[in-house]
Amino acid sequence: MEQRVIDTLRKVFELNGFIGIETRAVETGASLLKKGETSKEIYLLSRLQEVGHESDTPIEDRLGLHFDLTVPLSRYVVEHSGDLAFPFKRWQIQKVWRGERPQEGRFREFVQADIDVIGAGELPDHYEVELPLVMVSALEELRAFGLPKATVHANNRKLSEGFYRGLGLTDIEGVLREIDKLDKIGADEVAKLLVETCGATEGQARACLELAGLTAADGSELAAKFDALCEAHGIAKDSEAYELARQGLDTLAMIVDEAAAIRPGSVIADLKIARGLDYYTGSVYETFLDGAASLGSICSGGRYDNLASQGNRKYPGVGLSIGLSRLVSYMLHTAGAHASRVSPAAVLVAVWNEDDRPAANRIAAQLRARGIATDVAPTAAKLGKQIKYADKLGIPYVWFPAGAAEGEESAGDEVKNIVTGEQVPADCTSWEPDTVVAQQTVEI
Amino acid sequence: MEQRVIDTLRKVFELNGFIGIETRAVETGASLLKKGETSKEIYLLSRLQEVGHESDTPIEDRLGLHFDLTVPLSRYVVEHSGDLAFPFKRWQIQKVWRGERPQEGRFREFVQADIDVIGAGELPDHYEVELPLVMVSALEELRAFGLPKATVHANNRKLSEGFYRGLGLTDIEGVLREIDKLDKIGADEVAKLLVETCGATEGQARACLELAGLTAADGSELAAKFDALCEAHGIAKDSEAYELARQGLDTLAMIVDEAAAIRPGSVIADLKIARGLDYYTGSVYETFLDGAASLGSICSGGRYDNLASQGNRKYPGVGLSIGLSRLVSYMLHTAGAHASRVSPAAVLVAVWNEDDRPAANRIAAQLRARGIATDVAPTAAKLGKQIKYADKLGIPYVWFPAGAAEGEESAGDEVKNIVTGEQVPADCTSWEPDTVVAQQTVEI
Repeated sequence: MEQRVIDTLRKVFELNGFIGIETRAVETGASLLKKGETSKEIYLLSRLQEVGHESDTPIEDRLGLHFDLTVPLSRYVVEHSGDLAFPFKRWQIQKVWRGERPQEGRFREFVQADIDVIGAGELPDHYEVELPLVMVSALEELRAFGLPKATVHANNRKLSEGFYRGLGLTDIEGVLREIDKLDKIGADEVAKLLVETCGATEGQARACLELAGLTAADGSELAAKFDALCEAHGIAKDSEAYELARQGLDTLAMIVDEAAAIRPGSVIADLKIARGLDYYTGSVYETFLDGAASLGSICSGGRYDNLASQGNRKYPGVGLSIGLSRLVSYMLHTAGAHASRVSPAAVLVAVWNEDDRPAANRIAAQLRARGIATDVAPTAAKLGKQIKYADKLGIPYVWFPAGAAEGEESAGDEVKNIVTGEQVPADCTSWEPDTVVAQQTVEI
Repeated sequence: MEQRVIDTLRKVFELNGFIGIETRAVETGASLLKKGETSKEIYLLSRLQEVGHESDTPIEDRLGLHFDLTVPLSRYVVEHSGDLAFPFKRWQIQKVWRGERPQEGRFREFVQADIDVIGAGELPDHYEVELPLVMVSALEELRAFGLPKATVHANNRKLSEGFYRGLGLTDIEGVLREIDKLDKIGADEVAKLLVETCGATEGQARACLELAGLTAADGSELAAKFDALCEAHGIAKDSEAYELARQGLDTLAMIVDEAAAIRPGSVIADLKIARGLDYYTGSVYETFLDGAASLGSICSGGRYDNLASQGNRKYPGVGLSIGLSRLVSYMLHTAGAHASRVSPAAVLVAVWNEDDRPAANRIAAQLRARGIATDVAPTAAKLGKQIKYADKLGIPYVWFPAGAAEGEESAGDEVKNIVTGEQVPADCTSWEPDTVVAQQTVEI
């Protein structure tokens, strides 16, 4: 099931011209610690021979497992900058690890599916609408597995920062960090924290919450609501703060309007979206599923202008990441999909007695050569037992080679659909299964 | 390139009815240390907060990264025994990690591709020929990527043990361990080690080397050569040692004869194959590529009767493992295959000016809906620059939307094959690329 989800995402990413890369799971401590804030969640490695002497090596020189796919991308782009055509669009689906104590719904090991586009020096802002739309179309494909409709909620850091500065606040990162908790702890608690930790007055805190309450489905609605809010809080249109906010607003308005033209209802402006990480510099995105608000955002990201650099050259990017393990877990437990330990085989060739196994193998080889996944019975057990084995493996057809079977005489091969019970003569050089049997793989 | 190799292997494994599983990379120290000998190569994990206190936790209770896919399989089978249909045939392609100091050609992180079949209580010996043949057919498919022909070299532990015991030797594991070094250090060194470390006389050591020199393409040749060797060294046909050797010989003869009937030249008996690991109990396999002996075995395995157990119930198995990273590395550097940082897209839609981007996006959406991977030019740069971008990404077609382009007038869309230079009118609802553009992914 997870494998089929991965195959689906990969297909959509490649249809959109994203290049697949894979990076090693192990990075240096120095690389992993760059982002600072999440560093507490890193798993460090030690060779068995080093046990007891781990602390002799400074953490920067030790090795650790990557905890996201952004840190490795940043290293990859700098290392391969000479070979890449920029803007570089890449998809990457890999496991990541976090050194958390396991809790319900949180894994220490999980799969992320990321797309990013990285420019050399500059990056046009049309990617800020295209990337969320690629994710929307990928999530749309997953509705075949029972996933509800997804909506991207977008905001822009410059808009928030401009507004906060217009109010007279200076601890912008602090305010964003508290606003990010809104869904978890509610408005009153956030207001309290803004006052206690970010130096806000009651009035400033309430204004931040008013901004966070603003949503809009199109650009002109967004601009009207935002301007009204600025007016109410005395933020002048000729102020530097408003200028900054307006840059963000224009990009955000472009995003919702473009998205509405291409895929109506897929992206809305939602000004409470803050994102915890401090490296976003413009657009930020979270994605929610209809009827699954408690799941939180299943696909998040944003624009970052300073993640990677090489000398004077910056590599700005836009990226989004799906937390695939959580999503698959949701699909399995809530959305009605199911994991199954079933065979990819469409046919089980029966074996009357062990001397006939070579004949059964030849039939299987013929079917496989024609692309029909086939298994051969493990032993020349009683026919009922062989059919039961096929049934337990979810194999829909049992093939009976010509010969005397349990008292029956048959002149030629026959094949039985064990679901319908229908049994017909069949030739392994031309027979095709009626049912399209999806190839399935097994979950952990 | 690695992704396409993985897709190919997966296809062959599933055509043969193997079920795909994926297990977590992290296992407990207790699980990882069961196999003893290789334990030196384990990477242990520690959370960043634990640094300095790692040694407070006994190694058994710590977590580590799996170093093969057999240990996780053994845990998986025991945990899911109630849900599985036995014999359980599974494929698994995942990264594994070894805590080695990196050397040329040896990675700390690499991908293995394993197939195993596991029985509950018992396992018919026909799997001992079927599994190597599945690997042979998988390797055969990889010849499309430039891989040379592969030959499986098979031996049997019982045959070797019976012969050694017949000679009067008792340190069977020791003898196997030294014989395993034959290709690396040569016969004279091995003879010396057999005398020094395994208590062998010069004559016994030479007899062991004579056995290791024996190869055969069919069962009767194998039996004749082996019996002659036993007679030369005074091993009587009615001895217990000969009985044991004969069991192994009969299985090995069956394997080479069956394989010859199905795929002539794919499997030979080669009595120097020893395998380092002590958990094999019957057949052992190594696989060599024509003209690449120095690469060593690219696909190894064997039969093990005691890897997993649950109370009184044993789970015997047969399995083989491809060291995929080494194989792909060989294919890239020696066999003429190449990695490329190219786009999966077949078409780049040109953009005359930024106002026309929505029209370019609509063309791209039409092509993608028809399964044609498509990219859109990042900027409305000069036409030559857009074509150069497509060329650098390996995108063979550039699509020109209708409109005035660099002085040209065109009434309708046109598409240019930038390899041949041919440019023709085209409709995005019906046009198909001439060239089948393989989807390619990028290496680390």
